[in-house]
Amino acid sequence: MQKKFFMAEYSSILLEKAVDELAKLPGIGRKTALRLALHLLGEEKVTTETLAQSLLNMRGNIVLCKQCFNISDDEYCSICSNPKRDNGLLCVVADMRDVMAIERTGSFNGVYHVLGGVIDPINGISPNDLRIKELVDRSIKENFREIILALPATIEGDTTNYYIFKMLKHFEGQVTAIAKGIAVGDALEYADEVTLGRSIMNRIPFNR
Amino acid sequence: MQKKFFMAEYSSILLEKAVDELAKLPGIGRKTALRLALHLLGEEKVTTETLAQSLLNMRGNIVLCKQCFNISDDEYCSICSNPKRDNGLLCVVADMRDVMAIERTGSFNGVYHVLGGVIDPINGISPNDLRIKELVDRSIKENFREIILALPATIEGDTTNYYIFKMLKHFEGQVTAIAKGIAVGDALEYADEVTLGRSIMNRIPFNR
Repeated sequence: MQKKFFMAEYSSILLEKAVDELAKLPGIGRKTALRLALHLLGEEKVTTETLAQSLLNMRGNIVLCKQCFNISDDEYCSICSNPKRDNGLLCVVADMRDVMAIERTGSFNGVYHVLGGVIDPINGISPNDLRIKELVDRSIKENFREIILALPATIEGDTTNYYIFKMLKHFEGQVTAIAKGIAVGDALEYADEVTLGRSIMNRIPFNR
Repeated sequence: MQKKFFMAEYSSILLEKAVDELAKLPGIGRKTALRLALHLLGEEKVTTETLAQSLLNMRGNIVLCKQCFNISDDEYCSICSNPKRDNGLLCVVADMRDVMAIERTGSFNGVYHVLGGVIDPINGISPNDLRIKELVDRSIKENFREIILALPATIEGDTTNYYIFKMLKHFEGQVTAIAKGIAVGDALEYADEVTLGRSIMNRIPFNR
């Protein structure tokens, strides 16, 4: 491309700055960023103000729940402080995204514990980087009848499962892990060998 | 999906509000909006503050250039106020996006006039809704030797071309329209009939 002339693609430094910042977001390239910026320029001023304020409020005021370490607007999150949730059933997850995923299923009414990741020596994440000590503390202080480990079905997840299981040897309730098997709706021929193998190994009798 | 329990997909009203606002942007669904919000939550506070401030600055301070109606940070845009641009050559476009597209080519060194759309009776856009009067004024006051009409190659664009051409009958310089033909790099067999037809009709002799 020739660049003989002074080029003024944006003709506005303010627009260029906004595009720069939007393009830093994951999955947003400069073309999409420009489309978003021009969209905001075409809308009422209040649209941009509401968007900017909601982002500032979110980033400025969201904290981690003191009990479960899920994101929260208050000291204790809306799940921990909800009297209708079952406080005897604890679900241990790696990430707050996993809390959202489980809540969406609508099939869990207990409380959570967010570890903040899984043990991953290659990426330098050791048990001390996770909230495993806090989990052990909760397993002693609170009165759980069951702790469900709902960690990713990866080697790191399995390692973390095993580590936590060992750390919970004092715990008198049940420790369970979520079932791994073929996805509902999947055909057997498309499932990978390991998943299908575990699915057969962990088969469930009909009369249960 | 069963909804037996109190569901807390977001567990944070602040997060939910931010997701709501992000999801109002074009092409951003709720899943993408959540990903963007969680990304910002994981970054330093200053990232969100810079983004929000750049959007507010853009929406709050960008104006239209008094001369060409392109977006501008000042009374006159960086193109109109640049002494290196050729003030004798005017390019008429429908939208500020078209200014950006032409600037990106690097093959135009004149100035612009942004109409703000094209004549489109079906969508209720009449000549009075566009900056055609301002264009006629400029063609009288300023000293253009050529006015290039660079409007979309649609029926509405052609109608607007013709309307403007009639309104510029007093203008003594040349009025031209951008060439329509097959795209550079395109094979003839994939070009549509109308484009290929116009491309043959407007053929250019080799010795020019």
